[in-house]
Amino acid sequence: MNKITNYTALVFIVTFTACDSKTKTENTETTSLNNMIFPRGEKITNNNFTGTAWLSNLIQSDSINQNSVGNVTFEPGARTKWHAHPAGQILLVTNGVGYYQEKGGVKKILRKGDVIKCAPNVSHWHGASADTMFVQLAITGREKGETVWMEEVTDADYNN
Amino acid sequence: MNKITNYTALVFIVTFTACDSKTKTENTETTSLNNMIFPRGEKITNNNFTGTAWLSNLIQSDSINQNSVGNVTFEPGARTKWHAHPAGQILLVTNGVGYYQEKGGVKKILRKGDVIKCAPNVSHWHGASADTMFVQLAITGREKGETVWMEEVTDADYNN
Repeated sequence: MNKITNYTALVFIVTFTACDSKTKTENTETTSLNNMIFPRGEKITNNNFTGTAWLSNLIQSDSINQNSVGNVTFEPGARTKWHAHPAGQILLVTNGVGYYQEKGGVKKILRKGDVIKCAPNVSHWHGASADTMFVQLAITGREKGETVWMEEVTDADYNN
Repeated sequence: MNKITNYTALVFIVTFTACDSKTKTENTETTSLNNMIFPRGEKITNNNFTGTAWLSNLIQSDSINQNSVGNVTFEPGARTKWHAHPAGQILLVTNGVGYYQEKGGVKKILRKGDVIKCAPNVSHWHGASADTMFVQLAITGREKGETVWMEEVTDADYNN
């Protein structure tokens, strides 16, 4: 009987180890699928960003509606340069953990569900946290001109 | 030995059955959590909607930015009345299955990741499909006045 008990314990442990790793894998897949609401789009190749970020233009500004809507995915550590929008910007965080800072202000931590209203011509930057990616929708009015890009966000500013 | 083999099979089956249901439960929880990016908000009690819908005002229009952003959750079968926006509207679908129709146009089926740009003063309606809820972000310019509400979407129009 003792032999059977030991044998049972062994089978039990092996089986549960196997199915626990199965659970982790399935949840990771489920999460990654559910996180992809809008396409990641194309890798951003201009020099207005530090690190790797991706942009999908969901809505183009035109004469009918001068707002553009972009889905931006920042890989960990990636961020914009300092910049300003002549008509302001609205950010809606859909996934991950990121940062937002206005010139002279404190660096805010942003998470899924957070929203930001950035006033016109206010210099600011946004991007992912150091170890977690960050996905946001950016709603930008184009009626007063295009984004004004400035200097890079230094590691000192980023890590501050 | 035969006794041990039978006993092993029994333990194996019982354990795997247990951990498979554990997997299903965890995935269901993961999915429902990931679907809730923005708060559902308050139940809409005005008479501009048919059925049950919920609104969370994420961004209020003000003198700095005249766009408002709302997260609207339609329960199955729920929809707006026919209405128009003097400055137009942008819809971003974040979950579920819904419908969008402009006056004189065909009813479009909308799914997670779909986007709509509705021109100013174009009469239209949107809502959930009959058997699936629908969640959308609505970006509405308020600079030319408030939404103009019209007649109810009949079951004939809805089911057409």
